[in-house]
Amino acid sequence: MENPILVEITRGMLVESVHRGAVAIARADGTSVFTPGDVDVPVYPRSSLKPVQGRPLLESGAADAFELSDEEIALACASHSGEPMHTSRVAAWLKRIGCTENDLACGPHPVRYEPVWADMVRHGYRPTRIHNNCSGKHTGFLTVARHWNIAAEGYEQHDHPVQRSIAKALGQLTGIEAELPWGVDGCAAPNFALPITAFAQVLAKFADPSSLPDNRATAIRRIVQAMIAHPELVAGTGRSDTILMRAGNGRVATKAGAEGFYAAIIPEAGLGIALKIDDGAGRGAETAMAAILDKFGLLGDDHAARELVRSPVLNTRNAVVGERRPAPALNIAEIEALRVQ
Amino acid sequence: MENPILVEITRGMLVESVHRGAVAIARADGTSVFTPGDVDVPVYPRSSLKPVQGRPLLESGAADAFELSDEEIALACASHSGEPMHTSRVAAWLKRIGCTENDLACGPHPVRYEPVWADMVRHGYRPTRIHNNCSGKHTGFLTVARHWNIAAEGYEQHDHPVQRSIAKALGQLTGIEAELPWGVDGCAAPNFALPITAFAQVLAKFADPSSLPDNRATAIRRIVQAMIAHPELVAGTGRSDTILMRAGNGRVATKAGAEGFYAAIIPEAGLGIALKIDDGAGRGAETAMAAILDKFGLLGDDHAARELVRSPVLNTRNAVVGERRPAPALNIAEIEALRVQ
Repeated sequence: MENPILVEITRGMLVESVHRGAVAIARADGTSVFTPGDVDVPVYPRSSLKPVQGRPLLESGAADAFELSDEEIALACASHSGEPMHTSRVAAWLKRIGCTENDLACGPHPVRYEPVWADMVRHGYRPTRIHNNCSGKHTGFLTVARHWNIAAEGYEQHDHPVQRSIAKALGQLTGIEAELPWGVDGCAAPNFALPITAFAQVLAKFADPSSLPDNRATAIRRIVQAMIAHPELVAGTGRSDTILMRAGNGRVATKAGAEGFYAAIIPEAGLGIALKIDDGAGRGAETAMAAILDKFGLLGDDHAARELVRSPVLNTRNAVVGERRPAPALNIAEIEALRVQ
Repeated sequence: MENPILVEITRGMLVESVHRGAVAIARADGTSVFTPGDVDVPVYPRSSLKPVQGRPLLESGAADAFELSDEEIALACASHSGEPMHTSRVAAWLKRIGCTENDLACGPHPVRYEPVWADMVRHGYRPTRIHNNCSGKHTGFLTVARHWNIAAEGYEQHDHPVQRSIAKALGQLTGIEAELPWGVDGCAAPNFALPITAFAQVLAKFADPSSLPDNRATAIRRIVQAMIAHPELVAGTGRSDTILMRAGNGRVATKAGAEGFYAAIIPEAGLGIALKIDDGAGRGAETAMAAILDKFGLLGDDHAARELVRSPVLNTRNAVVGERRPAPALNIAEIEALRVQ
């Protein structure tokens, strides 16, 4: 079965490239409301899993014990751009839990925000582990290990208690009893694969955790609130999550993942949205998610967010030569009907 | 109709992302020998069109009149990386035809080769038009206009004689009489769309131009020879065209295009190959073309070329966490049968 075309890229009079994918929108009670495409095959949510990976930090009591701020919780769920607002906060947090950058298991990669990257190149600075977009998530893992008073070394291993806690909670939230397939993410931590219908249900429980045990519900509510309160810490300047959450004005939390994954949590509607672009293209995932959130009326007239829905394709002289746009498969009445007025 | 999966990206125990696409392999007599996927819809070859766009430079007599070297002809067909070996040659060529960089219609974009880019950032240099990967192609257009003694300004317009000459030759080489659909390329020049079967036939005529009029055959032979002789000028350090042509050791010319297009010319077999990845991913196109050329026995045991066929997916700690590999649709006996022993 092939998935529907969700996003088209045009040039001149033709559609030049297309992005196929699958979308699942679910309610907290586990029912699915919109599922075009093959939504039953296990898929890695990649960084879209971060809100779930941040849960032990709250649920274990580690966040309270170390008096974490909402900013730090947002960073635990972030794929940040390595801007000073990100790295300075992660550095301070590491220090507070008695760790250093050397305790991070993630490797370095070039800083994503171009002005910061250019500044580093000019000064001859090399990126270090703290610049990894996942350094907040890893600091969260370290914080849990510290709080549990267990060995922090090896916290990124599949069999470490922090990772087992994440896998166990995913099983509880989805009802999937079998061990989830997993792979190693770019940052060296395990990433767990599950059908996007199941992941949309997890996200729906983040949107409305009222059916969950109190401790878990409280943890989840704080994660979602922290993300919504700090869109610039969850991603960074000019990034899609920052743009979409700002446009949503408190009504939606979003989290992009590598290889074309995208997740959204809509508390007011009790809905979770998960989508995966088959070919892994971030441009496809951004446009598909922006188009869906727009259908929900969550983007208003925010210019940057509207440019994610329909983006001009520019040539090197900045002339418009084509367009990136949602394909007809996303113009679905089911979404309009779900819209909260 | 959906196209077959040509390339898979794995992570851990799962296939994480896939690239669908269409492939056409044709002989110079116009027959197609291998055409999985929808090969009849018009597609932009993008920079894979450059060998065809370089043809007027030879056929008009401009190359002889200005005593162009094979290096300059290779640059006319290049998507270069903006390395000094590229920009210094384009600058000297522009000067020889009495033009300056200001006559180029392409806009600037960041230099692709990271060490050069980092060096420019360190010195505060901004990229200019000559750094555009198409600056050689544009200098070729200017050279034809100079030779014809017509206005060079506007040479990138669809109705300029240089562009009309390219469209006309495409019609002659394909037998398509209707005006080809077109769009504006990243460099501001027109790009003409045609079915990939038709474009594979054009490439096959580049592989074996013996049925063409003498002047055209001579022009085409010199273009292919120049590309094969200077793989580093057609692309640049570490780029797929440079790697594949070096591995081919004189037996194949290749040319990548944006948005997942890839072209190859195999003179010894009289074959042309065109492929387009539906989603526009360069990684998919590179792996698909490398896998096909490998089937033809053209890559030998060249390490860099073999890594294009099967590439490890690394995490930020340089551990192997997955693989980019050809999908079963490319394991086709038809290709093996075409192999020149």
